[in-house]
Amino acid sequence: MNKYKIVSIVLSVALLVHIVRLAWVFVAPSSGDGVSSASQTVLHNILQRKSVRAYTDRAVSHEQLDTLIRAAMAAPTGRDMRPWHFIVLEGRHQLSPLAEQLPYAKMLAEAQAAVVVCGDMSVTDKEGNPSRNWTFDCSAATENLLLQAEAMGLGAVWTGVYPYDERIEAVKQALHLPDHLIPLNVIPIGYPKGDPQPKDKYDPTKVEYRN
Amino acid sequence: MNKYKIVSIVLSVALLVHIVRLAWVFVAPSSGDGVSSASQTVLHNILQRKSVRAYTDRAVSHEQLDTLIRAAMAAPTGRDMRPWHFIVLEGRHQLSPLAEQLPYAKMLAEAQAAVVVCGDMSVTDKEGNPSRNWTFDCSAATENLLLQAEAMGLGAVWTGVYPYDERIEAVKQALHLPDHLIPLNVIPIGYPKGDPQPKDKYDPTKVEYRN
Repeated sequence: MNKYKIVSIVLSVALLVHIVRLAWVFVAPSSGDGVSSASQTVLHNILQRKSVRAYTDRAVSHEQLDTLIRAAMAAPTGRDMRPWHFIVLEGRHQLSPLAEQLPYAKMLAEAQAAVVVCGDMSVTDKEGNPSRNWTFDCSAATENLLLQAEAMGLGAVWTGVYPYDERIEAVKQALHLPDHLIPLNVIPIGYPKGDPQPKDKYDPTKVEYRN
Repeated sequence: MNKYKIVSIVLSVALLVHIVRLAWVFVAPSSGDGVSSASQTVLHNILQRKSVRAYTDRAVSHEQLDTLIRAAMAAPTGRDMRPWHFIVLEGRHQLSPLAEQLPYAKMLAEAQAAVVVCGDMSVTDKEGNPSRNWTFDCSAATENLLLQAEAMGLGAVWTGVYPYDERIEAVKQALHLPDHLIPLNVIPIGYPKGDPQPKDKYDPTKVEYRN
């Protein structure tokens, strides 16, 4: 038998195996790199996001927190004002003063880190006025952060601060915030304890199609 | 030259091409199917989201709009009140009355569809009060919708309505909204015209790490 014939057969088999593996990448539901797959991954992540209120002892790294903040700052803002400021509390000892001031946010006591999303009133428009949309902008940024946390296997929960005066004061005092920063919420972060599940909140009575 | 030799060379090249492509699937930043990959896909989508203000003639299907609404309703809400209502305008003829009333939202005239995200004041707590957080909740829902639109290759943009009285009245009149619905924004939707690019809005001066 010609040695090139043998090489040809071996190469044919190898090529076939690779083609099948390559085809599988495009057929398998959760992989591949087409638009449809990215769309499904993003939707799955949105639907899987849940409020996580209990955390394990596993540490959350600075790099992970930095990624969350980068995701947050990619949100849209009214008139592109970006009227936000993020305070990242790294390490549990940073959380104690806040946990003491916010008895309703008990999960802070076992969180590994927290992000306080604030509106920055020192960011002003041409007329010198602060944003009238800062709570919307900071809410969209918070949602980005929560979604990215879910994608990274982290757990987090939005605990509201604004517009409740007593909570705003408690956070401002605990963190020694300057007057121009108004805390919208506090987001405790950690690896989820247990197996928290998302709610299915889809409700067809809350959508109206007009065509 | 031996014909098997030629076949061997051709097959070798084909095999090499396939190996390189396969390797690329695992090396490329947005593919693979591990946890890390899902995280990268989600982050990439968050960072790629941009405000799209010009659209092609390509139609947006009911199924696509339904997916966007399902994504929106997965957002968290204060005290789980879900104080929202979504009005989906399908087809361009539905957009004309709104486009006429909202001269600042000119892109509506060429959008294929639009979603009006409203707060529903008829959703009340045990004490009979509407949500004090409806604008935050609807903002988070809007961000989910915008992110899912990006993931599906659609373009969309948040055009603000609340808290501007004249815009609120214009939308309420154009859409004949009942008093308990307050429009937060109007989101025109279509396939992007041209090649809009996202802004890099990360700013290290807007984040403060405490450790």
